[in-house]
Amino acid sequence: MTTMLGQNQYGKAENRVVRVTRDGGTHHIKDLNVSVALSGDMDEVHLSGSNANVLPTDTTKNTVFAFAKEYGIDSAEAFGVHLARHFVTSQQPIHRARIRIEEYAWERIPVADTGRGEHSFVRKGQETRTTEVAYDGERWQVISGLAGLVVLNSTDSEFWGFVKDGYTTLQETTDRILATEVNARWRFAWTGGPGQDAPDWEASYAAVRGDLLGAFAETYSLSLQQSLFAMGSRVIDNSAALAAVDEVRLSLPNKHHFLADLAPFGLKNDNEVYLAADRPYGLIEGTVLRDGAEARIPVTD
Amino acid sequence: MTTMLGQNQYGKAENRVVRVTRDGGTHHIKDLNVSVALSGDMDEVHLSGSNANVLPTDTTKNTVFAFAKEYGIDSAEAFGVHLARHFVTSQQPIHRARIRIEEYAWERIPVADTGRGEHSFVRKGQETRTTEVAYDGERWQVISGLAGLVVLNSTDSEFWGFVKDGYTTLQETTDRILATEVNARWRFAWTGGPGQDAPDWEASYAAVRGDLLGAFAETYSLSLQQSLFAMGSRVIDNSAALAAVDEVRLSLPNKHHFLADLAPFGLKNDNEVYLAADRPYGLIEGTVLRDGAEARIPVTD
Amino acid sequence: MTTMLGQNQYGKAENRVVRVTRDGGTHHIKDLNVSVALSGDMDEVHLSGSNANVLPTDTTKNTVFAFAKEYGIDSAEAFGVHLARHFVTSQQPIHRARIRIEEYAWERIPVADTGRGEHSFVRKGQETRTTEVAYDGERWQVISGLAGLVVLNSTDSEFWGFVKDGYTTLQETTDRILATEVNARWRFAWTGGPGQDAPDWEASYAAVRGDLLGAFAETYSLSLQQSLFAMGSRVIDNSAALAAVDEVRLSLPNKHHFLADLAPFGLKNDNEVYLAADRPYGLIEGTVLRDGAEARIPVTD
Amino acid sequence: MTTMLGQNQYGKAENRVVRVTRDGGTHHIKDLNVSVALSGDMDEVHLSGSNANVLPTDTTKNTVFAFAKEYGIDSAEAFGVHLARHFVTSQQPIHRARIRIEEYAWERIPVADTGRGEHSFVRKGQETRTTEVAYDGERWQVISGLAGLVVLNSTDSEFWGFVKDGYTTLQETTDRILATEVNARWRFAWTGGPGQDAPDWEASYAAVRGDLLGAFAETYSLSLQQSLFAMGSRVIDNSAALAAVDEVRLSLPNKHHFLADLAPFGLKNDNEVYLAADRPYGLIEGTVLRDGAEARIPVTD
Repeated sequence: MTTMLGQNQYGKAENRVVRVTRDGGTHHIKDLNVSVALSGDMDEVHLSGSNANVLPTDTTKNTVFAFAKEYGIDSAEAFGVHLARHFVTSQQPIHRARIRIEEYAWERIPVADTGRGEHSFVRKGQETRTTEVAYDGERWQVISGLAGLVVLNSTDSEFWGFVKDGYTTLQETTDRILATEVNARWRFAWTGGPGQDAPDWEASYAAVRGDLLGAFAETYSLSLQQSLFAMGSRVIDNSAALAAVDEVRLSLPNKHHFLADLAPFGLKNDNEVYLAADRPYGLIEGTVLRDGAEARIPVTD
Repeated sequence: MTTMLGQNQYGKAENRVVRVTRDGGTHHIKDLNVSVALSGDMDEVHLSGSNANVLPTDTTKNTVFAFAKEYGIDSAEAFGVHLARHFVTSQQPIHRARIRIEEYAWERIPVADTGRGEHSFVRKGQETRTTEVAYDGERWQVISGLAGLVVLNSTDSEFWGFVKDGYTTLQETTDRILATEVNARWRFAWTGGPGQDAPDWEASYAAVRGDLLGAFAETYSLSLQQSLFAMGSRVIDNSAALAAVDEVRLSLPNKHHFLADLAPFGLKNDNEVYLAADRPYGLIEGTVLRDGAEARIPVTD
Repeated sequence: MTTMLGQNQYGKAENRVVRVTRDGGTHHIKDLNVSVALSGDMDEVHLSGSNANVLPTDTTKNTVFAFAKEYGIDSAEAFGVHLARHFVTSQQPIHRARIRIEEYAWERIPVADTGRGEHSFVRKGQETRTTEVAYDGERWQVISGLAGLVVLNSTDSEFWGFVKDGYTTLQETTDRILATEVNARWRFAWTGGPGQDAPDWEASYAAVRGDLLGAFAETYSLSLQQSLFAMGSRVIDNSAALAAVDEVRLSLPNKHHFLADLAPFGLKNDNEVYLAADRPYGLIEGTVLRDGAEARIPVTD
Repeated sequence: MTTMLGQNQYGKAENRVVRVTRDGGTHHIKDLNVSVALSGDMDEVHLSGSNANVLPTDTTKNTVFAFAKEYGIDSAEAFGVHLARHFVTSQQPIHRARIRIEEYAWERIPVADTGRGEHSFVRKGQETRTTEVAYDGERWQVISGLAGLVVLNSTDSEFWGFVKDGYTTLQETTDRILATEVNARWRFAWTGGPGQDAPDWEASYAAVRGDLLGAFAETYSLSLQQSLFAMGSRVIDNSAALAAVDEVRLSLPNKHHFLADLAPFGLKNDNEVYLAADRPYGLIEGTVLRDGAEARIPVTD
C-alpha cells in the first residue's frame, strides 16, 4: 500500500422535503433541501468495500422525511440540530454529522374569504436561505447564510485612487452603479454548551438579512470592499442581543453596469443608460470577525 | 439549385439594458433583456453571402441602448413598439420586426432618511415579466406574459375518476398538494389601428398577474386543466375595461409533491410531509380564447 | 360563458429511461429523456374538471418504462413511433400523440481484457440528439434534430458590405472567428404511408450530423446566414438515398469572439487573442426546404 | 471598532480568453476561463475605502489577455504560473495570487483537403479541465482537476452488508448500475523549488484522466467509496515518472439508476430498464494521499 485515506464524508444530498402544518383551515409550509454528510470509522469501506460501518445514504434520506413528521420543522437550524444529533449519537462508527439546508420562502396569495381558510402560496423567489449544522458529539457549530440576494445602488458609489500599472486602462469615476449578488454565511457563537440557550433562529435570520441590506444601501461606497466590511460589521455589532454572530463571510461578485457609449449617435449619457454585463466580473470576498474571535468558516471560494 | 429558403429572421438577442431615471435624489430603474428579430428581403445573404440588405445585429444592439436614452422606458411594451416601428420604417428591406423583452423587477431597500434620496434596490426575483411586440408595417401584435411564477395550494385539490388502462397504477385522491410554475402569455386585442388607444401596459400587467394568482388560489381543483381554464378565463373576463386580452396561453408543469411513505417507520403521514419531485412532471398546456377570437399565439411547446 | 378552449395537450414530461441490452458480457445502453403530449376530446376536464377522458400522466410514464422492456429501444425515433401509435390507437378520446425525446450518447471506456466483458461507459457529452414523433391516427411526422453542438472556424469568415445607418459603429472585417452552437431540426419525408419503409434512423442521424459539421467547416463564409443555408442544403441534398429530409430548421447563435484590444499595452494582436462573449449575441435562424416542399416545422423561436 | 478583517481576496473572475496559434494554414486553439484572486495588504480598502493598494480587477483582466499574446498558452498550468508570478512580483502590496482556470477542449472537424489548411473545430463537450495555481512569492502549489466527467458501469457493482437501523428500507443488491460524475482535483508535488523541473502538464492531464477512467471501469465495486479510493490511488501510484501527484480529492455524486418496477404490468425487469433519478443523490467525497504526504487540498464540499 503506497497510499492512505484522508478526509472523507458521505450521505444523501438534496432531499427536497416540504412540511405542511395545519392550523384549522390555515396552513403553513416549510420548503427545504436537506443534505446529509457523515464521517467516522470509514477506512474499511474505502479499502475493502466492506459496508459494515456504513449507514446507507438511503437511510439518511428516510430519516430526513421521518424527522419532518416526528419533530416538525420549526426552523432549518433546529431541524438540522435534530438530524445531526441523531446520526452521531445513534451510530457508533459515525463521529461527525454535517447537515446543510437550503430553504425557499413562500408568501400567501391574498384570497377572497371563502371560509375554507388560507392555503395558497406563491414562492417568494428572492434569496435562498441556508444553514450548515455540524456536530461531533461534543460541540455544535452553526453557520447560517443566504445566497443570491441581488442588490443595486444607482449612485453613491465611487472608484478612484487605485494602483495603475502598464496594464491599467480603467478610468476613475465618482459616480457609478454598484450592484452585487450577496452570498453570505455567518457563524453563531452558540456551541450548545451547558446553559447556552439556542438562538431564536427565525428572528435572527430576519435581523441579519435586514442588516446586510441596510448596510449595503446606507454605505457611501469608495470600493466594494468597503461595503463588504460595513455589511459584515453591522451584522456582528447588531447581533448580540438576539443571537450572537462572531464571524461573517461574504462573497460579492461585482455585477458590472457599464455606461453605454452613446456619443457616436450624438447622445449624451448622463448616467442614465447602462449595459449589465455577465462575464468577466470582479469578485470580492472577505471575512469579518468579532474582535478576538477565531476564524472558523472555511474559505471555500 | 434543389433547395429553397423558408422563414428566416435575425438580430441581436439578449441586450441587457438598465435605465436609471432620476427624480431628484430618488431614482427609478428599469431592467430589461431585449432581443431583436428582423425579417424581409434576405434571400441574397443566404444564397451568396451578400450583406447589402443586412443591417448588422451590432447596429440593432446600438439602437436598443440609444433608444433607452432617446425615448426612455415607460414600459417594456412601449419600448418594444418604439424599436419595432423604427426597424420596419427606416429600412426598406426589413418587412417585419419582432422585439422580445424580459423584465426583472426591483423593489426599494428601506433606508434611514439620509437626505440623499432613495436609490437602493433589491431584485424582486419572483417571476420574469415578458413581452413580444411584432410589427409588419401595418398591424401590431402584442403578446405579454410572465414566466417562472411558482404557486402552491396545500389543499382543495382532488384527482380521481380518470381512465384506467393496463399501465395505470396511480391511486385516486381527494386531497393533494397542487403546485405549478405559471408560464403565461396573453395577447392584447390592441393592433394599433386608428383610434385605438394603447393600453396602460403597467397597470395591465399588475391586473393580469393578480388574476392568474387569484384564479389559481380560489379554484377548488379537480384537475390542473380545470385550474388552467379558470386562470385564462379570469384574465380575459376581467381585462376589458383596462386593456382587452383576447387570448391566453398557459404552460403549467405539475410540480409533484408526493406524500412521503412513513409507514415503515410506524408513523402516520396525515398530509403533512411531502417529497418535492423534479422529473418527470406532468405538463399541462392550453389556450383560452375570448368567444369568437382567433388563435394567434404560436403553440411553441 | 364568454371564453372558449383552444389548442391544448398534456402528458408526462422528462421520463429519464435507461435501457441496458446484454450481449453476453458486452453491454449496450440507450439513455433517453422522453416527453409525452396527448390531445383529443378534452373539453370536459377543462370546463368541469371531469377526468373521464383523461389517461393520467402517471400512466403515460409507466407506459414509457414498460415499452422500453416490451419493444426495446432500437432508436429514439422507433421508440417514439411505438409510443405514439399506442396512445392514439388504444384510447378513443386521444386523437393525437406527440413524443419528444432527447438522447444522450455514451462511448466505451477502454479496459484491460478481464474476460468479464465490456460494460463501462463515459458520457460523450457533446450535442443532445432529439426527435419529435407526431401521429394523429393517419399520418406520421418525424422531426429529428440535435442541440448544443458548438463549432468554430478560426478563419475563412468575413463580414462587410452591410447596411450602415446612424446607429452603425461596427467595422468591416475580412478575417474573423465564426463560432456558433448548432441547433437543428430536420423533417423526414416519411409519413408512414403504405409501402413507405421507415428510414434507418441511426444511420440517418450520423449522416446528417456529419453534413452539418462538414458544410459549416467547408463554407468560406461571408455571413452566418450563408453558412446556415449551406448547412441546410447539404443535409437535404445528401439525404435522399438513405432517408429523405425535406426541411431543415436551424437556429444559430453567433458566439462572438472579439479581438482583444492590446494596443494600450504596446502589443499587436494579429488575430491571436480573442475575448469569447456571452451576451448579447447575434441570433440567425432560418428554414431550408427541398424545392417544392411544404414548410411544416413550427417556427418556435 | 468591535470587528476586524479576516481572510480576503479579490480579482476579476471568468475571463474568457481564446488563443489561436497559426501553423501555416493549420490552426490550434486554447479556450480558457481564467479567474484571478489576489490578497495582501488590503486592510485600508476595507476599512476606509482607500484604493491606494488596489490594482483594479479590470487591470487583472487586461493582464490575462495581454499575457495570452506575450507568453502564449502552452497549458493552463503554465499560463497560471506566468500570471501568478507577475501579480506577486510586480506589486508590493500583493502577497499571494491564486489563478483558477477552466479549459474547454476542442477537436478538429474532418474536412476535405481544400489546400486552405485546417481551422475548423467542434467543442469536445465532455469534462471541463481545471487548474488552480497559487503562489506566495516563495512556494508554488498547483492543484489540477476535472469536473463533469460522467461514467457508468452497467454491472460489476454490488451493495450489501450495510448497517440497518429503524429508518432503513433499502434492499441489498448484488448487481446494480454504478454511475457517477467524476469531480477530481489532484495536487502536484512540484512546488517550484530549485532544481525542480516543471511537469509536462499536458501529458500529465491525459494520464490522470486515463487513470481515473480506467480505475473506475476496472474496479469490481462493493461500494462507491471503494471505487473512489481505487481511482485516487491509481492516479498517485501511476504519477511518479511523469509528474508526481501527492494528493487526490474526489467528489462523486452517486447518480442513481433505479430498476423500474414493471411487475404491475406483468413484465419481468431483468436488469434491463432503469429510471435515472436526479435528486436526492448519494454524495461520496474523499481524499487519497501518498503515504506520508500532507493534506493540502481544501475540503470545500
